[in-house]
Amino acid sequence: MSLEKVVIVGASGYSGEELVCILSRHPNVELTAITSRQQVGKTLGEVYPKFASTTYASLKFIDSTIEAISATGAKFVFLALPHGVATEFARPLVAAGLRVLDLSADFRIKDVSVYKEYYGEDHLAPELAALSVYGLPEIYREEIRNAQLIACPGCYPTSMLVPLIPLMKRHLIKPGSICVSSMSGVSGAGRNAKVDLLYVECNESLRPYSVPKHRHLAEVEQELTIAAGENVRINFTPHLVPVNRGILTTIYAAPADGIESWHFENAYAEDYKASPFVRILKGDALPDTKNVTGTNFIDIAWRLDSRTCRVVIMSAEDNLVKGASGQAVQCLNVMCGWAETTGLIG
Amino acid sequence: MSLEKVVIVGASGYSGEELVCILSRHPNVELTAITSRQQVGKTLGEVYPKFASTTYASLKFIDSTIEAISATGAKFVFLALPHGVATEFARPLVAAGLRVLDLSADFRIKDVSVYKEYYGEDHLAPELAALSVYGLPEIYREEIRNAQLIACPGCYPTSMLVPLIPLMKRHLIKPGSICVSSMSGVSGAGRNAKVDLLYVECNESLRPYSVPKHRHLAEVEQELTIAAGENVRINFTPHLVPVNRGILTTIYAAPADGIESWHFENAYAEDYKASPFVRILKGDALPDTKNVTGTNFIDIAWRLDSRTCRVVIMSAEDNLVKGASGQAVQCLNVMCGWAETTGLIG
Amino acid sequence: MSLEKVVIVGASGYSGEELVCILSRHPNVELTAITSRQQVGKTLGEVYPKFASTTYASLKFIDSTIEAISATGAKFVFLALPHGVATEFARPLVAAGLRVLDLSADFRIKDVSVYKEYYGEDHLAPELAALSVYGLPEIYREEIRNAQLIACPGCYPTSMLVPLIPLMKRHLIKPGSICVSSMSGVSGAGRNAKVDLLYVECNESLRPYSVPKHRHLAEVEQELTIAAGENVRINFTPHLVPVNRGILTTIYAAPADGIESWHFENAYAEDYKASPFVRILKGDALPDTKNVTGTNFIDIAWRLDSRTCRVVIMSAEDNLVKGASGQAVQCLNVMCGWAETTGLIG
Amino acid sequence: MSLEKVVIVGASGYSGEELVCILSRHPNVELTAITSRQQVGKTLGEVYPKFASTTYASLKFIDSTIEAISATGAKFVFLALPHGVATEFARPLVAAGLRVLDLSADFRIKDVSVYKEYYGEDHLAPELAALSVYGLPEIYREEIRNAQLIACPGCYPTSMLVPLIPLMKRHLIKPGSICVSSMSGVSGAGRNAKVDLLYVECNESLRPYSVPKHRHLAEVEQELTIAAGENVRINFTPHLVPVNRGILTTIYAAPADGIESWHFENAYAEDYKASPFVRILKGDALPDTKNVTGTNFIDIAWRLDSRTCRVVIMSAEDNLVKGASGQAVQCLNVMCGWAETTGLIG
Repeated sequence: MSLEKVVIVGASGYSGEELVCILSRHPNVELTAITSRQQVGKTLGEVYPKFASTTYASLKFIDSTIEAISATGAKFVFLALPHGVATEFARPLVAAGLRVLDLSADFRIKDVSVYKEYYGEDHLAPELAALSVYGLPEIYREEIRNAQLIACPGCYPTSMLVPLIPLMKRHLIKPGSICVSSMSGVSGAGRNAKVDLLYVECNESLRPYSVPKHRHLAEVEQELTIAAGENVRINFTPHLVPVNRGILTTIYAAPADGIESWHFENAYAEDYKASPFVRILKGDALPDTKNVTGTNFIDIAWRLDSRTCRVVIMSAEDNLVKGASGQAVQCLNVMCGWAETTGLIG
Repeated sequence: MSLEKVVIVGASGYSGEELVCILSRHPNVELTAITSRQQVGKTLGEVYPKFASTTYASLKFIDSTIEAISATGAKFVFLALPHGVATEFARPLVAAGLRVLDLSADFRIKDVSVYKEYYGEDHLAPELAALSVYGLPEIYREEIRNAQLIACPGCYPTSMLVPLIPLMKRHLIKPGSICVSSMSGVSGAGRNAKVDLLYVECNESLRPYSVPKHRHLAEVEQELTIAAGENVRINFTPHLVPVNRGILTTIYAAPADGIESWHFENAYAEDYKASPFVRILKGDALPDTKNVTGTNFIDIAWRLDSRTCRVVIMSAEDNLVKGASGQAVQCLNVMCGWAETTGLIG
Repeated sequence: MSLEKVVIVGASGYSGEELVCILSRHPNVELTAITSRQQVGKTLGEVYPKFASTTYASLKFIDSTIEAISATGAKFVFLALPHGVATEFARPLVAAGLRVLDLSADFRIKDVSVYKEYYGEDHLAPELAALSVYGLPEIYREEIRNAQLIACPGCYPTSMLVPLIPLMKRHLIKPGSICVSSMSGVSGAGRNAKVDLLYVECNESLRPYSVPKHRHLAEVEQELTIAAGENVRINFTPHLVPVNRGILTTIYAAPADGIESWHFENAYAEDYKASPFVRILKGDALPDTKNVTGTNFIDIAWRLDSRTCRVVIMSAEDNLVKGASGQAVQCLNVMCGWAETTGLIG
Repeated sequence: MSLEKVVIVGASGYSGEELVCILSRHPNVELTAITSRQQVGKTLGEVYPKFASTTYASLKFIDSTIEAISATGAKFVFLALPHGVATEFARPLVAAGLRVLDLSADFRIKDVSVYKEYYGEDHLAPELAALSVYGLPEIYREEIRNAQLIACPGCYPTSMLVPLIPLMKRHLIKPGSICVSSMSGVSGAGRNAKVDLLYVECNESLRPYSVPKHRHLAEVEQELTIAAGENVRINFTPHLVPVNRGILTTIYAAPADGIESWHFENAYAEDYKASPFVRILKGDALPDTKNVTGTNFIDIAWRLDSRTCRVVIMSAEDNLVKGASGQAVQCLNVMCGWAETTGLIG
């Protein structure tokens, strides 16, 4: 089988670096180009010493231009760019017939007024937002198969939507009852030279931020509303904690009347029986980010609390893998008709 | 002024060590004895190299017996012992007229059936539980003043009760609506040689535990029920995160009808105007454990979310100081009629 | 090609766990059994939740007996056992014709009196120590090819020997001048429930230990003596630092008269041109453990200091991979005639 | 006794912040002003939430001008400024008769050609360098007493000079034999928004830097040369490790002929019997930064290695306290004739 050529645009952030890592181990893919305006002409191994002597060590960064990308002959392009910048690339690439997997927030929100509310500016390409598919294979596997533009979900949304959607679809929990507390490793904030993200400021520090209206709420509520068939609004509080990677999400909700634990169990079993990256924990086990770090798994457990008539649902994922780059490669696998785990479980 | 003699029973755990630290800087106190069955005859400086060359470096550990403690002439005794063991000491010490500050859970629960439900065994001294005062000075300052037995609150309960009680008393939030997510540093689990608490197991790990019924729920619900004047049941999920110290608690609740942010502000201002360790954050500030580490402060902020009709209340404290030893010393200050901050702010 | 069957004896420590991880991705190997006296009958996925849904998730732990191991039909056995215990298994397995890769210290020391000096007891199988090959492929590649018993090097020794042996062989540095300071992540101390290894004791702590005579000195001096052709004694100080993984070693030595930087460069180029895991850093680059974590690479740089007539040589490796399990798999690759990087670079 | 007024110029870095912390607890001092060009008009509590509700919470930052500083009436001024900037302040303040404690490197080097070699530019005030006293009270206590300008030592130099000077003075070790390996917490790099200092880049990372010629070598060799009475050149390799605070230094040296362990013991006992912050560890104890974090102590131990005829000397200190701000306050205590421990041990 000939290898599928792919390009990564903007490979100098944490997500881009993780994409290179994953694609280096992918048996069906040839990483044919990486782009970065600052690093043009340097090799991957020079810029990231960890990649020295690995498969793509001598691959050189090329300029981030449409011409350069098109010239590679690749059919698939990953965009690991800041919010707002992705659109500039997606439009001409999509127009040129390439299939684009965008890791930014640019195409996740279908309703441009919601986009404006959360991102503070007009959407630049509503027609692309309209045709994009939300890249959560556990939910949109069929739509992803033939999509031309994938809007890969945010790291926090993945940690909420995978556990919640099967429950919302079946009306197992009351839509107005959801409160979510998440904690994330610092890589989620990107490789940005800000005082708040310095080692000394983050180590031995636990802190909430963006309360009460983090941007990721927009896509979470959009998808929960679709699943529930009614308008859903939730509370969500992200916290920054001193780990490099990992998101642990704890969700509180009120089960619908008469709902018991086995309803949850059945819902997950049914929806995720063909989803190799969703692990429903058994017995006494609870999620721990260290069990998913470096993997594309999301671990889920729940406990009904009869004293308060609430359920506590917990999930753990690696924010850079299942929360970003691994999920994007999972989408690529679906788009190419390969086994969903190709290059992701070994 | 002559110094007040105090004794610490069980000074080899993290709380005991922190008590020594704080009392070393306390201008009105003489630490006259420390006890430990394992370390009898050794000096503090030998057992804890960090105390070498400090005030009590050459203080020797004495045996943990009532006779030895009584012989010191101290009127105040801190018990930093495991749950269950404290009762053995409290009973004879109280009988002998000493004033006891117990850091364990032994006397926090007034209802012995609740105690049995959460701690799995019959209470050994219900009469002491009955006479004890819950050692949260912000709430029970007057009762603490003349108490003979103080049941110092748990670390998690402090982080919930200080922000919640002023609201419950005034019926500003709906009692059935409370969900709490807390994250704690590893010192909260004590100096216990368990695989789960090893560096490698905790570093780069985020994990919930004791879901849905952590033992601290018992005292939290007891105190919230007293404040609200009606039965209160809440959800509480503790998480272990890789910091040495600090608890960050995030609380979700539904405000009562018509309640706005200024009702909260007034409640806190009124109840805590004379509470020097409660810091109500202003403007954009949110709690961060690194601002309270090593101090007896508890930092509190809240945000109303009009979209969901909920309030998010956040608090930060040092689990070993305001959550344990600092609070115990704060109680001592109250009992002795000293300024509440004596030895605790400098 | 049919898969080569292998067994891991003692798969419940950090090295055993890492072996499972690496072998799960190895294309030529079938992990046919894992043994553990405590975990018999449980599956890998049950004991280590991180392995759930991966290749060997439902592999069951079998008892650690020679019969059980032999019954698997495997020709290769990894021993990931405590020092002393490995001999009990190696003797009958070697006698039965199996090829054994031992990760313990049991067979590394050829001189049984040195073994006794450092390990405090008589060697139980000097004949096996005599026939074993020291499992450092960069040095003993040819001997490993047909070896029946591999004594895999310690984590610290690997970090010193790879950079030093090419220099010693060529007499580029003065044998009596070597001082080594290493720092190691806490996983190097094993999964042992000891107070000193608790999160709170290791976090925010930097400490030397085993000064001046750490056990690993024995094998280091043995191998340096062989390389130099004369008796070599060195100073070595290990330090425990708060990372999960990684060893950073800094070596001071006096270059022989007339030796300049290019002599070092040539020595490394010549000796390691066919060693895919040795990365000699160029330009301004210095080793950083984060570039080798999770890989089998060892990164090396050096600087001559003309002011003091000394050279500073620095290396970085992952103590569990190049320092233990990865190196053992590298040996397996050599023993089987596979490319040395098989299953180790992706 | 009336309080001594002091000013901190440049209180927005880690050293300045630590100075505020220490001076807040100092019984003889009134912090009369803090300056910062960026923060003029804001209170300390606003800029650093951790200082809210503490002694100087409402102290406002004033502009960093000589006029403003002079107007405070303070006789003592701490300069916690970047290298190079301190001179601009020191010159007029010294001229105006104030006593200045400078935490930068500006006045540590007596030989301006050495200054130029290490700092890359001409010294701007050689006359001030000449009159300054090196602020290491353990060595220069008498000179500090009446000094007008103190050049406070660097963090690494303190960790080397305190253990080495008593040995050099007595010729107990061979001057040409010294190799030093140090590891430092990230606060040593200052509060600078650089990618290399981000949490994700430092966590799980161990790395040497500035090899072989770190700037601190200049002052270390200057002071060792003075102590030895002959020219001393050493090797020194600093490493960045993931802790907030702490320096652990390991020194290798060859003892002079006939020198045994008791010579070292006597040297330290004699030189440091009146130095309350030097702790010479006994028995099996080795330095551990966690025993000195937050204190002004420096812990020292050594081991002679008869196999190699070398001694290994280890020290631990808090880089921000004994390595910077605590030491500066210790100097202030000496200058004012107060007990050296005032405000520093409690």
